[in-house]
Amino acid sequence: MDGDGASSTGATPSEEMNGTGNLMDFLDEPFPDVSTYEDFHTIDWLREKSRDTDRHRKITIKSKESYWELIKSLLDAWSGWVVMLLIGMLTGTLAGVIDLAVDWMTDLKEGVCLSAFYYSHEQCCWTSNETTFDDRDKCPQWQKWAELMTGHSEGAGAYVLNYFLYVLWALLFSFLAVSLVRVFAPYACGSGIPEIKTILSGFIIRGYLGKWTLLIKTVTLVLAVSSGLSLGKEGPLVHVACCCGNLFCSLFSKYSKNEGKRREVLSAAAAAGVSVAFGAPIGGVLFSLEEVSYYFPLKTLWRSFFAALVAAFTLRAINPFGNSRLVLFYVEYHTPWYMAELVPFILLGVFGGLWGTLFIRGNIAWCRRRKTTLLGKYPVLEVIVITGITAVLAFPNPYTRRSTSELISELFNDCGALESSQLCDYVNNPNMSRPVDDIPDRPAGPGVYSALWQLALALIFKIVITIFTFGMKIPSGLFIPSMAVGAIAGRIVGIAVEQMAYHHHDWIIFKNWCRPGADCVTPGLYAMVGAAACLGGVTRMTVSLVVIMFELTGGLEYIVPLMAAAVTSKWVADAFGKEGIYESHIQLNGYPYLDVRDEFTHRTLATDVMRPRRSEPPLAVLTQDSTTVEDVETLIKDTDYNGFPVVVSRESERLIGFVQRRELTVAIKTARQKQDGVVSSSVVYFTEDNPQVAEACDPQPLKLRRILNLSPFTVTDHTPMETVVDIFRKLGLRQCLVTRSGRLLGIITKKDVLRHMAQMMNQDPESIMFN
Amino acid sequence: MDGDGASSTGATPSEEMNGTGNLMDFLDEPFPDVSTYEDFHTIDWLREKSRDTDRHRKITIKSKESYWELIKSLLDAWSGWVVMLLIGMLTGTLAGVIDLAVDWMTDLKEGVCLSAFYYSHEQCCWTSNETTFDDRDKCPQWQKWAELMTGHSEGAGAYVLNYFLYVLWALLFSFLAVSLVRVFAPYACGSGIPEIKTILSGFIIRGYLGKWTLLIKTVTLVLAVSSGLSLGKEGPLVHVACCCGNLFCSLFSKYSKNEGKRREVLSAAAAAGVSVAFGAPIGGVLFSLEEVSYYFPLKTLWRSFFAALVAAFTLRAINPFGNSRLVLFYVEYHTPWYMAELVPFILLGVFGGLWGTLFIRGNIAWCRRRKTTLLGKYPVLEVIVITGITAVLAFPNPYTRRSTSELISELFNDCGALESSQLCDYVNNPNMSRPVDDIPDRPAGPGVYSALWQLALALIFKIVITIFTFGMKIPSGLFIPSMAVGAIAGRIVGIAVEQMAYHHHDWIIFKNWCRPGADCVTPGLYAMVGAAACLGGVTRMTVSLVVIMFELTGGLEYIVPLMAAAVTSKWVADAFGKEGIYESHIQLNGYPYLDVRDEFTHRTLATDVMRPRRSEPPLAVLTQDSTTVEDVETLIKDTDYNGFPVVVSRESERLIGFVQRRELTVAIKTARQKQDGVVSSSVVYFTEDNPQVAEACDPQPLKLRRILNLSPFTVTDHTPMETVVDIFRKLGLRQCLVTRSGRLLGIITKKDVLRHMAQMMNQDPESIMFN
Repeated sequence: MDGDGASSTGATPSEEMNGTGNLMDFLDEPFPDVSTYEDFHTIDWLREKSRDTDRHRKITIKSKESYWELIKSLLDAWSGWVVMLLIGMLTGTLAGVIDLAVDWMTDLKEGVCLSAFYYSHEQCCWTSNETTFDDRDKCPQWQKWAELMTGHSEGAGAYVLNYFLYVLWALLFSFLAVSLVRVFAPYACGSGIPEIKTILSGFIIRGYLGKWTLLIKTVTLVLAVSSGLSLGKEGPLVHVACCCGNLFCSLFSKYSKNEGKRREVLSAAAAAGVSVAFGAPIGGVLFSLEEVSYYFPLKTLWRSFFAALVAAFTLRAINPFGNSRLVLFYVEYHTPWYMAELVPFILLGVFGGLWGTLFIRGNIAWCRRRKTTLLGKYPVLEVIVITGITAVLAFPNPYTRRSTSELISELFNDCGALESSQLCDYVNNPNMSRPVDDIPDRPAGPGVYSALWQLALALIFKIVITIFTFGMKIPSGLFIPSMAVGAIAGRIVGIAVEQMAYHHHDWIIFKNWCRPGADCVTPGLYAMVGAAACLGGVTRMTVSLVVIMFELTGGLEYIVPLMAAAVTSKWVADAFGKEGIYESHIQLNGYPYLDVRDEFTHRTLATDVMRPRRSEPPLAVLTQDSTTVEDVETLIKDTDYNGFPVVVSRESERLIGFVQRRELTVAIKTARQKQDGVVSSSVVYFTEDNPQVAEACDPQPLKLRRILNLSPFTVTDHTPMETVVDIFRKLGLRQCLVTRSGRLLGIITKKDVLRHMAQMMNQDPESIMFN
Repeated sequence: MDGDGASSTGATPSEEMNGTGNLMDFLDEPFPDVSTYEDFHTIDWLREKSRDTDRHRKITIKSKESYWELIKSLLDAWSGWVVMLLIGMLTGTLAGVIDLAVDWMTDLKEGVCLSAFYYSHEQCCWTSNETTFDDRDKCPQWQKWAELMTGHSEGAGAYVLNYFLYVLWALLFSFLAVSLVRVFAPYACGSGIPEIKTILSGFIIRGYLGKWTLLIKTVTLVLAVSSGLSLGKEGPLVHVACCCGNLFCSLFSKYSKNEGKRREVLSAAAAAGVSVAFGAPIGGVLFSLEEVSYYFPLKTLWRSFFAALVAAFTLRAINPFGNSRLVLFYVEYHTPWYMAELVPFILLGVFGGLWGTLFIRGNIAWCRRRKTTLLGKYPVLEVIVITGITAVLAFPNPYTRRSTSELISELFNDCGALESSQLCDYVNNPNMSRPVDDIPDRPAGPGVYSALWQLALALIFKIVITIFTFGMKIPSGLFIPSMAVGAIAGRIVGIAVEQMAYHHHDWIIFKNWCRPGADCVTPGLYAMVGAAACLGGVTRMTVSLVVIMFELTGGLEYIVPLMAAAVTSKWVADAFGKEGIYESHIQLNGYPYLDVRDEFTHRTLATDVMRPRRSEPPLAVLTQDSTTVEDVETLIKDTDYNGFPVVVSRESERLIGFVQRRELTVAIKTARQKQDGVVSSSVVYFTEDNPQVAEACDPQPLKLRRILNLSPFTVTDHTPMETVVDIFRKLGLRQCLVTRSGRLLGIITKKDVLRHMAQMMNQDPESIMFN
């Protein structure tokens, strides 16, 4: 028996996560008072809930006293919605600013706008009147670096100069990003979703959602994405949104003083984060529900939805993409899909599952290496090297040179008649006189074939580099790279099926649905299905994934292909390992996360898990009326347990309550200072009745019933561990006492449960953080 | 202390609900074996879960033995998905059949198709070549009754004859419906959602989801909707889907033998039901999550989504509306909304909230009167009278004569240039040469003004008649009538705003967003917002409601108006009473439903709630080694408790376990029959060690440890009731033992918790069913 995470080990995980701890981050939060929890401890959900009820009860009673109190109680009731409004607005604003900044800085790697240096390529050419429709990306105001410096826009020299400057800018951005993270907010690195999942499940990581993290993560996210590394902004945006949530919590004591209520707000903030990342408010809420949250009551569902909507509309008001759409890759398809196409869709699902497995295994192996070898000592160097490799390899290929979200956007799009991109270089029938949006299948031109080669190379490049990129000490999300891998694979498959259908429409499989001159195959849809499959393989989302994709296309039509691919990819990936990337990282870092999805099916009983074990010394208990102050002080000094059970007497072992270590320490200290007659030999009383002091010479007794928790949670020693796990999960306990026939036998803490589960699943139990 | 619902009172609630009990319904289910629960009892979720884990464990162990067992275990693992597939397909098919039949029979009230009597009006005129575009509803094959019988289609005589036959058909349909319900399946009446909520929360109502109910509810739903009563098919479709779910559960022992697992399937079935009712799969899943379900793990989320998708696509394959859309009222709007329009939208929200309050209060008062006065004795007469009144009042008004869903569809639609309906009778500008779907605001013509009057009358009629209709002994949903009320109100407001904007576009409020000649106001959108508001006021749904509406329009554009109206209506309605219509009906019927949304904030402790109370006889307990068989039999005979705690001895009161009444009865009966030497004076042993039989002449002891539950749930007497309520809710307990310092004090059952909550909320505690 011991507390979950004694203070002596508290610093270790933080250092493990962040290289070296950082001062600013820990100054960020005030020193916790006695009623809050220590860093790297788990919270007691039941206690938080009952504290909130007490608070609420007091306000209700007070509100009947005067109008002022009534108004205050109404404000209190509305504060939840106010917090949501604020979170939504700030998250939407930050997302808009990030989008604009990323756009500008990504283009800065290639050139600059002469009319205003702060314009991105697209904005620069908007204001130009000299653009033709065909070449709308070419306008005189926008100059590539070589053109600006040497005056030549073509030729080998210009190419090399552009190449060199592209790499240089990338290195500069990533160096800035990793340095800022290292110096100001070590917690700002990574995607943040594994940590947020852990925090939402009731763990305390102080500073993880602090103001510094918010600021630095926002800035470095822009830098990291602009540097062209194979990473996305979606995961970090969830972290940023949660930081906003935490920030606004501190405005209301209802949320700042109650760790349980605070987590309700954070769940909603996560929904707002995904909402702005994809422009998908419903998908965001479902993501929070399916993937991130732990305790998600209906009230939180409504509030999350509200926050997600506010965030989405704030973002739309900022309009970063200039098309009044919420997302860069909004698409509309015009043709239906056919039943036979389910075969390639399911194959894409299998690909997605395999990619998920490969990515998770590779990335976890690399991250473990990073934790255990010298590599971890040089995070800045690592980022620089990976950025260098990425930039050098990315520049020659037009599909990797541009930003990943632009790539995805192009891959998702259906080829219109006037599309100028290489991917749309089909051989047009000169007699064609159809409306613009209903073009029949055409034979591929040379541009499409060269695009296919470049896409295949881009696919291999993305697969390899993403494995090494995720987990570096900069903000990095994996939604966008995963989607890119899937979209490339999907587009390649889509073009292959399209050409097959065009050239062989007499084949039996095409005969039924593909007449010559009809538009049967939409390669863009394949790209979207592939993206969903790959994202599903990595994260194991299903419903929220399909809903996000559905919100991107805005049509129920394509739900079946998406669902088929998402479910296939989940099944394939699950066959190789149950955990998604977030759970794998949680395990890798040893966070005390009790996954609601893990089914515990072993036949062990509470008695197998409880402490003390047979070989261990007996349970440290207090008695209700025969322990002296000195005994208690010795016990506190000798052990590091979080609390102690109180029994009637050591012989009867009848449990009467549980007392918290912190409260006991404070109570004794206060009594020694302020209460006359309390000395080391004073007896500590936990009984209800006043103790009978027989002789006058006896020292004054110390009555501590008020700090005794009279309703500790108990189970019998024969309770199946399955039930115990369920109780810990659903009630959010920290510890549970074990009895047999009314006698106290031992204690089970959340840590014991986690360690036991890990043992039963044959994992390395030593990896759990607080061990 | 007593069991929750002794068998002696079991018949009462069934009679109360259904008038008289019905034989066929109770023959439907086989007699429950010892491991299942009795009718009108609550289930023990923890026990069900642990039984399922046992089963799963056995299969896993067996699967390693042979290939055959491995295949069997894989089949078992996949059976969940198979059940979902079957539910989706059957639900979709039934919904399609119901839609087709309702269409045909609704039209049958007015006339008949000469080319084929089983064609509905629309289908009849499809096959006709003689229809013009303008008058596509008029074709020679379709004849009204008067025309067919007398040859005259115009004139007072024909009108009266049509009127008479319309009423006659309506009476016939509703008489058939109520008679079928009375004779074959009393449980088929009503919407079913309150009962399904109760069942999903862990209550047993045998036959409620039986095959007879399924069959009769499907048939009578068609009759009831066709009769023109103010009711919808959406709620009953959820019931039908749950019946399908229950039906397919019986195919797999995994689900049929485990009440907990069965409820997971039923949750998913409810999602499929809403999915086909509205053509909104995501909305269906969220409805199940937000409104209906009690225990909704992530696995159920995925499966619900799958079932909802399959159901939606089966329905689409049947294509009942002939437009390859899933819903009758699919709409597409072409103009955006403006910020200033939020004012009328919020006003519609207020209207929705007021309507919700009025409807709930009125309907509950009427239903209470039905339960307590003579009215309840004549359900058939009541239905006939209400149908008569409805038909007589509905016929003269073209907006109430047609089916309610057609009305809603017309109200939602935007007026195209070629629309022939009265509502679209605007004064056209002869110079107008715009594309068809972007018509500027125009002045209203005389048709619009007469339509407004008729709509206003229809609104009053619908409001009044719906209050009396819901709760009669026929299948009746309230989604469609509620939406109709809101759509009418919304359309009226919409036209008013539109005309105001047209005639006064120089007013300051219109100046900013409504130039003359622009299409600023879409009255159809107002109808949709009004419908959402009214539905929200009645049911208190928010997220699922908005998502359903969003799936109907298929655009994120209109989420803000819908959300504003839904949230306003919920707030307004909540101000008058926290409960939605389903919760109100649950309370009215006294179902033991522990609402997850009710916050219990009182300061009572477990000791205030537990039995026995001070004045009552002591707790009936067994001792582990000193009770004789005769004592036990007397105890069983004298009490009707569901189970008995077992203690070490009456003096020490140390609890060792809990034994179920049924298992005890069976064990003693079996032992008396099969085990030699067990007589009345035999001592019953619950101890682990073999009892020492001192003298040979002593009767053979009866060892019953195997039926003893060694891990009964306990709380201390000082546990706040708030925590106890939480434990009951989250763990789904049936009972919980109360201890103090290791001594057994009493017991709290789910019933005690519910009664206490009712007392604390100052409600009539006597209304709880099993009291």
